[in-house]
Amino acid sequence: MASAVRPNGNATQNGHVPNVVAPLDASRLKIERATTLKPIPAPGSYSFGDIHTDHMLVCKYHPSTGWSAPEIKPYGPLAIDPSSNCLQYASNVFEGMKAVLNPEGKPCMFRPRDNMKRLLTSAKRMALPAFDPEALLTCISTLVTLESRWIPSLPDHRNSSLYIRPTMVGTKASIKVGASDEALLYAIVTPVGPYFPVQKIGGVSLLAVSEHVRSWPGGTGGFKLGLNYSPGFVPQQAAAALGYDQVLWLLDEDKKITEAGAMNFFAVAERDDGGITIVTPPTDGTILPGITRDATLVLLREHAKNPSANLLNVPFPPNVQIEERPLTVNELAAWAAKGQLLECFGTGTAVLVVAIDRIGDFDVSDDFEDTGSAVSEIKEKKRKMREITLKGGLVGLGPVGKALWDKLLALKEGREQYMGWNVLCE
Amino acid sequence: MASAVRPNGNATQNGHVPNVVAPLDASRLKIERATTLKPIPAPGSYSFGDIHTDHMLVCKYHPSTGWSAPEIKPYGPLAIDPSSNCLQYASNVFEGMKAVLNPEGKPCMFRPRDNMKRLLTSAKRMALPAFDPEALLTCISTLVTLESRWIPSLPDHRNSSLYIRPTMVGTKASIKVGASDEALLYAIVTPVGPYFPVQKIGGVSLLAVSEHVRSWPGGTGGFKLGLNYSPGFVPQQAAAALGYDQVLWLLDEDKKITEAGAMNFFAVAERDDGGITIVTPPTDGTILPGITRDATLVLLREHAKNPSANLLNVPFPPNVQIEERPLTVNELAAWAAKGQLLECFGTGTAVLVVAIDRIGDFDVSDDFEDTGSAVSEIKEKKRKMREITLKGGLVGLGPVGKALWDKLLALKEGREQYMGWNVLCE
Repeated sequence: MASAVRPNGNATQNGHVPNVVAPLDASRLKIERATTLKPIPAPGSYSFGDIHTDHMLVCKYHPSTGWSAPEIKPYGPLAIDPSSNCLQYASNVFEGMKAVLNPEGKPCMFRPRDNMKRLLTSAKRMALPAFDPEALLTCISTLVTLESRWIPSLPDHRNSSLYIRPTMVGTKASIKVGASDEALLYAIVTPVGPYFPVQKIGGVSLLAVSEHVRSWPGGTGGFKLGLNYSPGFVPQQAAAALGYDQVLWLLDEDKKITEAGAMNFFAVAERDDGGITIVTPPTDGTILPGITRDATLVLLREHAKNPSANLLNVPFPPNVQIEERPLTVNELAAWAAKGQLLECFGTGTAVLVVAIDRIGDFDVSDDFEDTGSAVSEIKEKKRKMREITLKGGLVGLGPVGKALWDKLLALKEGREQYMGWNVLCE
Repeated sequence: MASAVRPNGNATQNGHVPNVVAPLDASRLKIERATTLKPIPAPGSYSFGDIHTDHMLVCKYHPSTGWSAPEIKPYGPLAIDPSSNCLQYASNVFEGMKAVLNPEGKPCMFRPRDNMKRLLTSAKRMALPAFDPEALLTCISTLVTLESRWIPSLPDHRNSSLYIRPTMVGTKASIKVGASDEALLYAIVTPVGPYFPVQKIGGVSLLAVSEHVRSWPGGTGGFKLGLNYSPGFVPQQAAAALGYDQVLWLLDEDKKITEAGAMNFFAVAERDDGGITIVTPPTDGTILPGITRDATLVLLREHAKNPSANLLNVPFPPNVQIEERPLTVNELAAWAAKGQLLECFGTGTAVLVVAIDRIGDFDVSDDFEDTGSAVSEIKEKKRKMREITLKGGLVGLGPVGKALWDKLLALKEGREQYMGWNVLCE
């Protein structure tokens, strides 16, 4: 674990590199406890992401010395130079994870090593220094354990958790356009309830957007970078102004679906032969390779392969097809027109699984000019909009989405175990 | 100027909006001087963007109160909450401007109102609060005047200046994905010499890159956002590993040129009829609408329209064509093959005008897989690369580029005036 790293942070094969610097080393973790602890708000009394707990994890990288000793210390502002790479050029990467108390009352996480691996991949894409992912996980586990009084527990398994936000930002204090060889790696935690307001759990609505494009081939949509998110704020405001909860991101003239808000997208359709097809867009670099997305696919495929084991407690027809392939909004519309669109849902760490019950789409070619504020232009088009709805006007999760929700929540909460996905904090 | 603004920062038509908040007001500017001043390093002894001067300008926006009184205070770190929108989702915008001493020894800037206008447009795209651009310019002018001892002055007009970096970042302390209604607006300054090392002024080399794409229709490449820059760090490292100074960004299978590094791109070609064509890609949302680019086009067009006035001190043939239109790297290669590629140059605030004397291009279709580190993949392709060079192996600025350099530098330095572009700091 504590192998030597070079100034660029990559592990070396031997110790003979002259400028060896310190690796991220969990055994050097220092803990400074807050002198007074904050009161815990009642679950359900706050919005997603607003609460700051008592402590945070911080570690710094400098090319001449490597990683500093990680520190858990009282939550508070970071001192960032105004010329820092992160503020100037957005070399910021992050992860989203959740901790809950398992039935024995112990904090546990869902597939945390996948988050560590993805954070490392994101850091590499931003030319930020590498780190030992296992060391970071150990430090995060210690932070979660220290903050475990903040883990909320709603009755009836409504997806309350302690959300964990590992973050890494380039801190080189120079406005020269180029990679930052200094970095700050930190993690904060925040108690969260359901991502969407309770009344919305029935299902969220999406506005299909073509005039703003979240990601493209050769872009950065396949990495978890801060910069993939702020370009969506204005389209999100436009969607909200039209009465939709989130944006359905499209790509190209054929309106390929990439993501739904900050979630991966799944559709369940009835085929003419009576079987069902479950489709999600492929991880071709234009969508985030979601960990909940991956877990969903693994569970669906295992269930389809061995129906008698009844992994998901839902009957699948014998000829179910599970497909990772490009999916267009026009396909959804065609299925809906024939009454064959059974379910749509989004997956993600924040939401787990959430029903999508309607999609607004401009069934016209887009001659939209980007003025930075899309509301007025979109409003003009509203009368030309079609709505895609589910078979029978279904609202809320259908049988596939509900089975996935139940299974993933049980795995997340440690009530069940599968492939070692539930990991205890130490 | 001090008109009422609403919480979203947009100016109102009247004062009857109930929740009126404070506008950005230069008359409230407070100045706290540094108690000890730093020594000024010798011009030429430092790299672009590394020096921090004595003071910075800072102003905060909160939706309930509006803009705080702007402050000029000692340069130092900013206190940023770890959950801040800017660190998490990269809602960061900036500008690049330069101040020099005019022949009377007074600090002056080049077209600063265009920078203020563009910053406002960028802020709107990031859903950040609006501000009075004239008030910000007044505050920045005051900062430059206070820091005027830092304005370097190289002999022989080698483009030394005090670079000004206005920056605005979203500071809402919540990891909820959405617009930040709190912001920090600040400006720092730094003395700079030529952007590229002196030995490079002869000309920079570009590696044409298709496998990473800087911008896209529906993307954010037409705005000056921090997030447009960090995705270029890895491609830039790959270009440097292959011996090129900067990346030439391409778009689509036909390899349309968008930008060169962080500069706008111009080519000058000889036509079969003996005339010359000067081409630059259009501001279609995929390139930055550069202010130096615009000044270049204005000067070229005015010179072509009225050759006898000899605005640029360079003879143009009577049938010169100045074109804003899509330009592909294959067109450049075709011109070069016929000995008709006369000049290529980049424009930008940092470089003013810089010669491009060779372009490396993979003359193969790209089946590149993005692994986050492009060096090894690119190296494999190196043997398949063609080099595009200028007619006669020209190195350094040709007659058009040199005439623009001379004129723009004279305007920037206040030795000449045109259309009120040179503006004194007050």
